[in-house]
Amino acid sequence: MTPIEDAGIGSVVVVGTGLIGTSIALALRQRDVRVFLADRDAGAVRLARELGAGEDWTGEQRADLAVVAVPPQFVAQQLLDLQKRDSARFYTDVASVKALPLAQAAQLGCDLTTYVAGHPLAGRERSGPAAARADLFLGRPWAYCPTDEASPRAVAAVERLISLCGGNAVRVDAAEHDRAVAVVSHAPHVTAAAVAARLAEASETALGLSGQGVRDVTRIAASDPALWTGILEGNALPVAEVLEALVDDLSAAARSLRALAGDGAAMGQVTDLLSRGVRGTGRIPGKHGGPARTYAVVQVLIGDRPGELARLVQAAGETGVNIEDIRLEHATGLELGAAELYVRPEAAEALTHGLRERGWQVPG
Amino acid sequence: MTPIEDAGIGSVVVVGTGLIGTSIALALRQRDVRVFLADRDAGAVRLARELGAGEDWTGEQRADLAVVAVPPQFVAQQLLDLQKRDSARFYTDVASVKALPLAQAAQLGCDLTTYVAGHPLAGRERSGPAAARADLFLGRPWAYCPTDEASPRAVAAVERLISLCGGNAVRVDAAEHDRAVAVVSHAPHVTAAAVAARLAEASETALGLSGQGVRDVTRIAASDPALWTGILEGNALPVAEVLEALVDDLSAAARSLRALAGDGAAMGQVTDLLSRGVRGTGRIPGKHGGPARTYAVVQVLIGDRPGELARLVQAAGETGVNIEDIRLEHATGLELGAAELYVRPEAAEALTHGLRERGWQVPG
Repeated sequence: MTPIEDAGIGSVVVVGTGLIGTSIALALRQRDVRVFLADRDAGAVRLARELGAGEDWTGEQRADLAVVAVPPQFVAQQLLDLQKRDSARFYTDVASVKALPLAQAAQLGCDLTTYVAGHPLAGRERSGPAAARADLFLGRPWAYCPTDEASPRAVAAVERLISLCGGNAVRVDAAEHDRAVAVVSHAPHVTAAAVAARLAEASETALGLSGQGVRDVTRIAASDPALWTGILEGNALPVAEVLEALVDDLSAAARSLRALAGDGAAMGQVTDLLSRGVRGTGRIPGKHGGPARTYAVVQVLIGDRPGELARLVQAAGETGVNIEDIRLEHATGLELGAAELYVRPEAAEALTHGLRERGWQVPG
Repeated sequence: MTPIEDAGIGSVVVVGTGLIGTSIALALRQRDVRVFLADRDAGAVRLARELGAGEDWTGEQRADLAVVAVPPQFVAQQLLDLQKRDSARFYTDVASVKALPLAQAAQLGCDLTTYVAGHPLAGRERSGPAAARADLFLGRPWAYCPTDEASPRAVAAVERLISLCGGNAVRVDAAEHDRAVAVVSHAPHVTAAAVAARLAEASETALGLSGQGVRDVTRIAASDPALWTGILEGNALPVAEVLEALVDDLSAAARSLRALAGDGAAMGQVTDLLSRGVRGTGRIPGKHGGPARTYAVVQVLIGDRPGELARLVQAAGETGVNIEDIRLEHATGLELGAAELYVRPEAAEALTHGLRERGWQVPG
């Protein structure tokens, strides 16, 4: 067989039909991959199936790839069970930590030649199959951590899975992955929870003054505590180190503010923290918020009147381009606004030309 | 004059044409209020004027209301200058802290009968007139803090300003306001900066694994450090107290994780923090993210095909309802999606009926 064929994925068994497992299944179904679904919760499998995620797994059918989509602490044992039954040619998982499952898998004597650990960075504050989306991984990073034992075929199969789901494959060492997600995911999650915990004890007046800022800071804190306790357990030391650095900065800021309230001490340390924060946000790839980064944005000037948007989207439809998302920005007090049409990058030029032909103002 | 007339605002002078000042001016212009613009930065005034925010203030014209939109530490002096020149019948400000400007105003001998301190909770991570939006305050809280000295006419004028801008007026004592915003705005801002500061020193690999979560947590940390230093200086003690509570929670979490890495101690304390976070997010009024809460959402099932959205928005346009925003949710792998149409609440029923008449599936 050629490597190309090796990387071919005709069938996948998804073990664990939660948010991530079901979203992977939905994405694979859109690419006409045969998907078998399994979960210790029969209700979760039924719901995933009704959402079009695939068919029930009898345990008999052998798949090209098995995706272990269970909490980190259960990955290795699940992998061992699947390998014992020879359920698939290759295996991966989607746990948010990587070093622990790999170590446990080696300890349990799993076959590490057919297993490549993975982690799509695409959670939501909602969980379960009902929150699943086929486009959850579009343009989002998807880390994978091949060991030295992993066969090239197994690596190719996981890379194929990532590409079928529209993710951005990021090959990284397991230990480096865990240090990285401690900084960009796990410690921010604990911090968001700590900010949100202040709201749990805040006055109604305080909550009534909540703006968009605190909503954004605390959004992820609505996630399932049991799931996240498992994730943090699996990455304890790297997360602890980031939290300790956070505590140092916040303690220093609190001290400066107390000193100020007392004798008017300098705020230089606080300003420095805020400035480092600005630098940090500037280093995050891609735009803040908005749809997945694989979309291109075509901005069109429109009058802020009933029917105007309809005429625009009608015109866009005539160009045959599918609009993935729309944002309206009433940028000024004038009777003029800008509509941002999000489309696949390859469609942006056709849409721009098509709209200009139809007399629409498309700047740039 | 009747109280109604007293509350009438035919002209407003906005001193400080930054994000908030210019947004207020744009909102007032949409309501045909005459707006005079002033800023120590002539370029900021010019840009605001070109955006349609109003006309230059010569300093001669007397307005019904003067809005002092300068950083907190300059509010009192600016108010005194305006009152000395009898620039307006009534005065307010938009600073993010309230006790300090009020104390300084009293200290400087400002006329507290014509001044009512205010604070619209509607910032953006962008600043300056170019980022201004007439709809910035739609459905957002707008705190105002009348003192005992404030005349009913002055209070009515500020309430009128808030309603003209579409804000939700929240009457609150200045000290309580400052404690509240420390919890829902100022401490979250410092915390977001501390999380973002970790990114400033993180590896490219780590940044490459950034997902939506860390983007949301750190979005506000991109704001101007000088502006925020001034805000935090003006609310030092309440912010310090919240930061200290945050530090206690994060230190405890770090200790639990270190202990776990050592001897596998219980994670109960961490789970408890996460659970308190979930409770906290649940107490924030309104939905997370999305457009201002004054909008009603009409959800419509649509096929995920080119032209389908065009037909829907066309149909919506035929109902004569103006669509404020649109969100698309490709909830499943099926060829079916849901479009969320955001409209003024009073228009939701007409839109629902109109769409159903035209054969669209509008659930609920």
